[in-house]
Order: sequence, then C-alpha cells, then structure tokens
Amino acid sequence: MPATANDHPADRPRSWWGWGYADAQPDDAECLALGALLPGTLARPLPLPRIADLPIGDPGATPPASLAHLVTADPAERAAHAMGKAYRDVIRALRGRPGRIPDLVARPSRDQDVADLLDWAGEHAVAVIPFGGGSSVVGGVEYRGDAHRAVLSLDLTAMDRVLEIDTTSRSALIQAGALGPVLEGQLRPHGLTLRHFPQSFEFSTLGGWLATRAGGHYATVRTHIDDFVQSLRVVTPAGTSASWRLPASGAGPSPDRLFLGSEGSLGVITEAWMRLQERPRHKAAASVAFTDFHRALDAVRDIARSDLAPANCRLLDPGEALLSGASHDGSTVLVLGFESATAPADDRLATALELARAHGGRAEPPTAGRGAEAGTAVGAWRSAFLRMPYLRDGLARMGAVVETFETAATWDRVPALIDAVRTEVGAAALEATGHRATVNCRLTHVYPDGAAPYFTVVVAGRPGDEVRIWDDIKAAATDVLHRHRATVTHHHAVGRDHRPGYDTQRPEPFALALRAVKNALDPHHVLNPGVLLGRHTP
Amino acid sequence: MPATANDHPADRPRSWWGWGYADAQPDDAECLALGALLPGTLARPLPLPRIADLPIGDPGATPPASLAHLVTADPAERAAHAMGKAYRDVIRALRGRPGRIPDLVARPSRDQDVADLLDWAGEHAVAVIPFGGGSSVVGGVEYRGDAHRAVLSLDLTAMDRVLEIDTTSRSALIQAGALGPVLEGQLRPHGLTLRHFPQSFEFSTLGGWLATRAGGHYATVRTHIDDFVQSLRVVTPAGTSASWRLPASGAGPSPDRLFLGSEGSLGVITEAWMRLQERPRHKAAASVAFTDFHRALDAVRDIARSDLAPANCRLLDPGEALLSGASHDGSTVLVLGFESATAPADDRLATALELARAHGGRAEPPTAGRGAEAGTAVGAWRSAFLRMPYLRDGLARMGAVVETFETAATWDRVPALIDAVRTEVGAAALEATGHRATVNCRLTHVYPDGAAPYFTVVVAGRPGDEVRIWDDIKAAATDVLHRHRATVTHHHAVGRDHRPGYDTQRPEPFALALRAVKNALDPHHVLNPGVLLGRHTP
Repeated sequence: MPATANDHPADRPRSWWGWGYADAQPDDAECLALGALLPGTLARPLPLPRIADLPIGDPGATPPASLAHLVTADPAERAAHAMGKAYRDVIRALRGRPGRIPDLVARPSRDQDVADLLDWAGEHAVAVIPFGGGSSVVGGVEYRGDAHRAVLSLDLTAMDRVLEIDTTSRSALIQAGALGPVLEGQLRPHGLTLRHFPQSFEFSTLGGWLATRAGGHYATVRTHIDDFVQSLRVVTPAGTSASWRLPASGAGPSPDRLFLGSEGSLGVITEAWMRLQERPRHKAAASVAFTDFHRALDAVRDIARSDLAPANCRLLDPGEALLSGASHDGSTVLVLGFESATAPADDRLATALELARAHGGRAEPPTAGRGAEAGTAVGAWRSAFLRMPYLRDGLARMGAVVETFETAATWDRVPALIDAVRTEVGAAALEATGHRATVNCRLTHVYPDGAAPYFTVVVAGRPGDEVRIWDDIKAAATDVLHRHRATVTHHHAVGRDHRPGYDTQRPEPFALALRAVKNALDPHHVLNPGVLLGRHTP
Repeated sequence: MPATANDHPADRPRSWWGWGYADAQPDDAECLALGALLPGTLARPLPLPRIADLPIGDPGATPPASLAHLVTADPAERAAHAMGKAYRDVIRALRGRPGRIPDLVARPSRDQDVADLLDWAGEHAVAVIPFGGGSSVVGGVEYRGDAHRAVLSLDLTAMDRVLEIDTTSRSALIQAGALGPVLEGQLRPHGLTLRHFPQSFEFSTLGGWLATRAGGHYATVRTHIDDFVQSLRVVTPAGTSASWRLPASGAGPSPDRLFLGSEGSLGVITEAWMRLQERPRHKAAASVAFTDFHRALDAVRDIARSDLAPANCRLLDPGEALLSGASHDGSTVLVLGFESATAPADDRLATALELARAHGGRAEPPTAGRGAEAGTAVGAWRSAFLRMPYLRDGLARMGAVVETFETAATWDRVPALIDAVRTEVGAAALEATGHRATVNCRLTHVYPDGAAPYFTVVVAGRPGDEVRIWDDIKAAATDVLHRHRATVTHHHAVGRDHRPGYDTQRPEPFALALRAVKNALDPHHVLNPGVLLGRHTP
C-alpha cells in the first residue's frame, strides 16, 4: 500500500554549509547577540561562504551512459554533499577550507541503480560515500585521503517511500532515503508513527539512522533505532542482503546487527521493515529541580532502574538548564515525560516524582495531556533543543569554538566521568584558546546500569585557528572518555572524527572480524573509506 | 568480590543419556503409564542404556604434558559429553547408536587454559566442542563428520564463579561455566538476580545461554539473554576479545552481537558482565480461558502491543492446556504474570484482563503476592513445564517419537502458520508412523509485531525406526516454517539439526561475512565444526 508524502521538506532550501534550513540560520544581528554572550569572540560575524568561491574542478571520473541519468556534477550539489554538519565542517566552510568536494553526486531511485553504481565504482576505484540527510557530526559523509580516483556521493533521498504498511503487525516497509518528516507524513494517515525523533529529525533519513545506530525519542528501554528493526535490505558490492521480517530470532548472530552501525562501510541500506507505534493517547510530563547535581544523578538512577520506563528522562546540569531556559536559578533540572497508547501515565509519573523527591528533587506541578508542555521547563527545553544547532552556527560565525560529544558509561563511573570531563576538557580548551570554556552536561538516555551523558563545550576561539582548537578539544575529550572506559559514542556514530577512540575501544579480534567482513563484502574497498576501518585521515 | 556458591547442583548425579537428574527420570511404572496414553507404543519400556555398552575406544590424540591435568579420557565423562538432550539424542542412546563419543573431555579453570587448549587443537586438527550444561536440543554439542583427528569436549563448568558484583550499576561479572542455580546462588546474598529461567535452567550455563541467544524468563520486551549483556570476554584462536562494560553504545556494529548466537563456532565465551535485577516485590498473576484459539491470539496481540509488559504471557492451546493441567474442558488458556520491584502490578494485570475480555476471555479471579500461583492454572502450568522433558524421556523409552520446535513470525502470519504446522506436520507424522500425532502449540514469547509459537509433536513410533521418523517430522517442520517465513529458531539455536533451515534463511552476503569471520578467528576450523558454517552432516 504505497502512500504519498504530504509533508516533503525538499521545497524549503537547505543550507549547504550549515545546519538545517537556510532561512532558519541566525542573521548577523542574532550572531552579534550570541557573540556578546561570549567575551573574546569576533567583532562582526564571518560572512556566509559562497559556493562560487569553492575549489570545484572537473570530476575525476565519468560514469557510463547507462548511469549518466543518475549522476550530476553540478557545483551546488557537490558543495552540499561535501561534508556533514559538525562544528568542524561548518567552520571549515566559513573559513573557505572545506573538505574534499565530491566529484559526482548520484541519486538512485531503486536497488538496481545502487548495485550498478557500486559495480562501476568498484571497477574504477571510485570512492562511494552513502549520503542520507547529511547531518553527520562525526565526519561520516566526507572523503579524506587520496587512494581513489574520484569520489561519488550516493544520495539516497530519492528513495523515500513507505512501500507497505502491515497494520496487523504494526510495521512498515520504508525506503532508507526517507527523511524524518517524509516518512512520518506517510505513516500519519494510518494512525501510526515510528516515533524516532533525534535532534536531526528533519535533516536525517531512516537509512542514516540505521547505519549509525541513531538514538531517538525514547530515553529508556528502546533508546536506539536498532530496537525497531524487523528486517533490512542492504545492497553490497558482493550482492544484496535481505533478512527475513521477524519479531525476534535466535538463528545465529543477528544479520541485521552487523549492518546496524556499519556506517556505509559494508553496504548501502536501501529498505527496512520497521516496527511502528500507535500515537500516544496519554501523556504526563513534569520537571524536577535539584540543588545538587550528584543527588540528581542518584534520583535518575533510581528512576532508570525502576520499571516505569519514562519516554523522556533528561537531566540538565545548571548550565544546560540555564541555556535552554528550563531554569534560571542554578538548579539542575530533570525533565520527565511519560506516554502511552494504552492507559493513563499519571501513576507512573507520580511514582517517578516520589523517587526524585527522595533525593531532594522539587517537582513542578505535574502536567498532563496535549499541549501540557507549553510554558513549562519541559516546553522550554524542547524548543531550545531544536534551535541549538542553528545557534551553534551563529556562534561559529562569531569565531567561537563549539563541540558537542556524547558517551555512555555504567553508573559506577558516571559521576567521576562527568567531573573529569568538566575539568580536563575545560583545561584543554583554556590551554588551546586562553579563554575559559563553558562545559555543560545533560543525560540524554538512561539505563538500569548506566547513563549517556552529552557534553557541550563553548569557548571563544582564536581567529583562523578554530579547527586546530577543536581538534585539541576533541583529543582531550577522547582521552578522558577512554580513561574512564566510556564509549567513544552513544549515538553520534564513529565516522572519521572518532576513529582514534574507536580503534582503541574495539576489541582486536573484533577488528580482525570486521576487516574480514569488509574484504568479503566490499573487495575493492570503495564504500565510505576510512570510516570504521582502513587508513585514518584526521 | 568473589562469592561462594551455596547451591551447587554437581552433587546430584545427572543422567548421561537423558534429561536432567538421573533420579528424576520416570521409572518403568511411570513409563508404562505414559505409554498407556499413546496407543501404538511399546509393551514395555526400553531398558536404560549402559556406558559399558558404548563403543568407546582409545583417544585419537594425546595432549602434551602441560595440558594433561586439564584433560580426561574417562569413559563416563566422554559418554556424558557425547550429545545434547534432544529427543534424537535420547533415542539414539536408548537404541545403542549414540553420536560420536568425544576422545577427550577438558575442564579448563581459566582463560589461559582455554587459549592453550585451542592452540594445541589448532596445531593437531582436533575439533573442539564448547560444552556448558549440555542441554542443547539442536545437536549443538555433538561432533559429526570425519575431518578431524580427534574430538575434544571443552567443558566450561569449572569456571563458574561470580567474580565481581557492582551494586551501583546492578551488574555482575560472571564466569560462563556457571549453571543457572550456581550463579543465582551467588547473587542471592546480594538481593540480586539475573532472572533468566529457561526450562533448562538447572542444566545449562551462562555461556551456553549467550552462545545460543537463549530465551528466558520474560515473555515480553527483554525476551533473550542478549538484552542483559553488558560486555563479553571471548577466547578465540586469534586472541581474546574483551568488550568494554557499557550500558549502551553506538560505536560501530556491536562486537557482542557477533558472538551472541555464534554457538561456539567463533570463540569460547569465558566471562560476561551481566545486567541484574532486584528480586520482584510485587507480583500479580491470573489465567484467562478462551473458547476460540484465534480470538485468544487477538487478545494476546493486543496485550503484546500495549506497554503493560507482562513478565509471563503464555498462551496454551487446548492440547497444551490439557497436558499441563491448566484446563480440562478444551479451553485455550492464557497464563499472565506481572512482576515489579518498584510498584504493585495489579493495575497492569487488570488492564490486561480487560483487553482479554474484549476478545471473549474468561478470567480466573486474579491472584497476587507470594505463593499466589499454587493450586491455580498458572501453578499447574509451571510445575508441568519443568517436568515435561523428563516425561519426554519416559515416552522415548516407550518407543514414542517426540519433537519440540519453536519459531517466531510477525502477527500477520501467525494464525496461518500455526494452522499449517498442525496440518502439515501432523500429516508428515502420520505418513511416517501410521499413527495420528498430537500437535500442540503454545506461545512462549510475544512482541508488538509478532509471536513465538512453540510446538510439541507426540506420536507412537515404529520400533527401531524412531530417528528416521524424527528426521521426517523435522524436515516437514523446517519446510512449513520456511514457506511461512518463520524463523528456524526463536531461542533453541541452530546447532546441526537446524542447519538446512538456517542455510536458506540466512542472507547470502551475511553467510559470506560469517565465513570470512570464521576464517579470521578460527583459521584451523577447529571450533564446533558444522555448527552455523561448514559441511552439514545430518
């Protein structure tokens, strides 16, 4: 039952160099206001970069006539596919030193197109970078190195249909190139939803979520997109892998789990049967303020260990709470949300609030129902959350350096880890810039056995030196995570920027295994070279 | 914080040829009573097989002196490690035609022992069969074929300690050779539990559960042992893989998920950090009778789609309900159980009962608290559940053929699948034996998008022909599952008996990948040959 999209975001122009929609980027006045908050930034914003100034030459390879209709060498297209949307990408564009611009952009519309393009690329040593919404913040969609004759960005967004809906099993077959709003728009008429709402929801695709093991809407239990996969279809240079639609299986190691997180290095995910949700009919949300951040951690741990399963359970340290408008008095704020399509969620919220009070939490009066979040700390947090990446670009234009990174660790390590990140990454930023950095922390997802802290570092840079400063901060972050045995990424993926941390974290026999798989499925090593495997180019 | 076991089951002699404890096997009188229920069975039970009658020769290889203390060639040990506990294994022992008896049994007590044994085996073409509790029902611990000079059964049960408990993160580092009661006995003093209670709980190990992706206690949400893994330590011929303890990670494809379900073919799991539970303080259980099996399926689907998350949600068809004493009037019975360490579970039970009533379910009065199950359909079911494999052995001694197999499929396919299994497997059994078979079905685990049906086939055999009959029934079952795109196994694993179904189900590029991993990690192909990969020997 093919459905039609009623909410296609392709009509609203996207920024080629920065986050999201071009018309949502901060204007010069807003940039100046942002800069005023951060002493040491520039007197005026960096000008917007222009595609005409980019070093875009002739493509290093030409596809055969049979593939020509899928491929373009248009400079604007190539520029828009050159990098992801990390701060490092944005500042390189602003400073006129972007990453390598791909030679070609392809837009396949079916599996056979993908297979044909991979065949051609393999024969001609053309690197293929699978590209969904391009929102990678880890260098996941950019070519680095020089081992290939040309670089092809493989844009999947023309494959964006919900092909089939099975209401009995509450699941749908969805093409991987569907952006968040595009797939939700096709599911809505059926009263169904995937409910995967990462910060990049508007600018990322199902295939990107799957390839990077994205973290989504739910703060507990089913935190990653992985948990919603029924089956995958993956086009590899060695053939197409199509797993069976199953609610669960114990037949050998999971085939899907090998491709989930493979970041385009083993194959191109083109379709997936996904488990869906009914739209929630019951909601209950509240926020809780704490004077003591460490007592708040204890409260969150108790809630995470319970079987209450909040959909939202985000803990904002005082800096995060202030930045998002959730609190102005130096409190730590816990944003709690429950939802259900089955039964009212108020009892679960009440029990969670009891647990929070036992650790000194002061609950705002609970709110329930639609629109309950407006005007509350919960609502303030949500609006700020979606605006945040645009503000980052505004800060970048003022010469600030901004880094966000996230991790996960078991509870026994979480408090010391957060303290160490604040101290050590703050020190590295000071050392690199001469300015005092803001280092904020929130917990985005929580588990019975641990939590996923997310850090934001903001510091005034030194003009022209921002990339090096960012690299220093990243190195310090990687080092402290490694020493605390916290994962190099909970849901942002590895890409190229996290390779040093990933290479140390990954058990060596698993690296052997993964290299063997790479050789078997991508014998010419054309798929996303340098991601997860292969020579690391910083 | 090493703990001591207070409940080690090694003191009670185990049956070398049949299920469980030797003294719990049905005696001749009970066998006769069982046979009386099934026309066409033998007049008297087959005699108990004797180790002295087995064809046990000299070992085909001798380990070096440095390993001699780990290894035995004792006939009783070798007999007890010759096969798993499938009906096919039991009847072969009873008929004096067991599988190949291993040449040697090793009992390592540390990782280095395992590594040394693997090194020696690799150099001398000795097959190594990792062995936990030996409860495989899929030919997972038996050598078939002739490509190796000798066969070593690698018994891990001397590595059975809980090495460390982290109460803050509610997790423990547990050696893989710990049998269910052994590890629970060490966790109990800390008020913690793994709560993994497969039917084989007393006779299977943590390592076995992990290697086979065992299904456990919970009927919903966290149904497999996979979900409780924080990290794994795996000794492979190419080195030891030790993943980091993490509550979650998005760093590349999950290393642990490659070894979960690898069934001893890629490495030997020696330790795991496991997520634990508090013992539940609140319980609520009830059973619901239905006149119509298909309406009962609809009720279970509604409950599985809700967020009520019952711990137990087992649907017994009339035959299963009768057999277990849960019902005597031809009803289908749904056994529901809720538990929580946080809050009373009665409301959740009440909501689930409402959903069941909407599909014609008649609820027994709900019961709550400790001991609530005694004397109820729930209690009857649980006692019968644990006794069932012993009764199977009693039936085997009466010449009956018994096969149990399980699967999972999406809800859209479940009703037709169950009907087809009843019809087609019943027809195959009749064809093979001339007798009418009983084909019962229960759902063991349920999901929002599907369910895991479990089938029991019982039929009077033809004396001496039982293995061929079983093979015919298995082939018919594999065929019908395949045509309905239902997985060859939900939690019994692949082993050797499920290879034909697994080979068809597994996507070919994933097979390529798995073979590449096998070559990389087990270059001499000594680990559990024929399981998942390699030549299939029926």
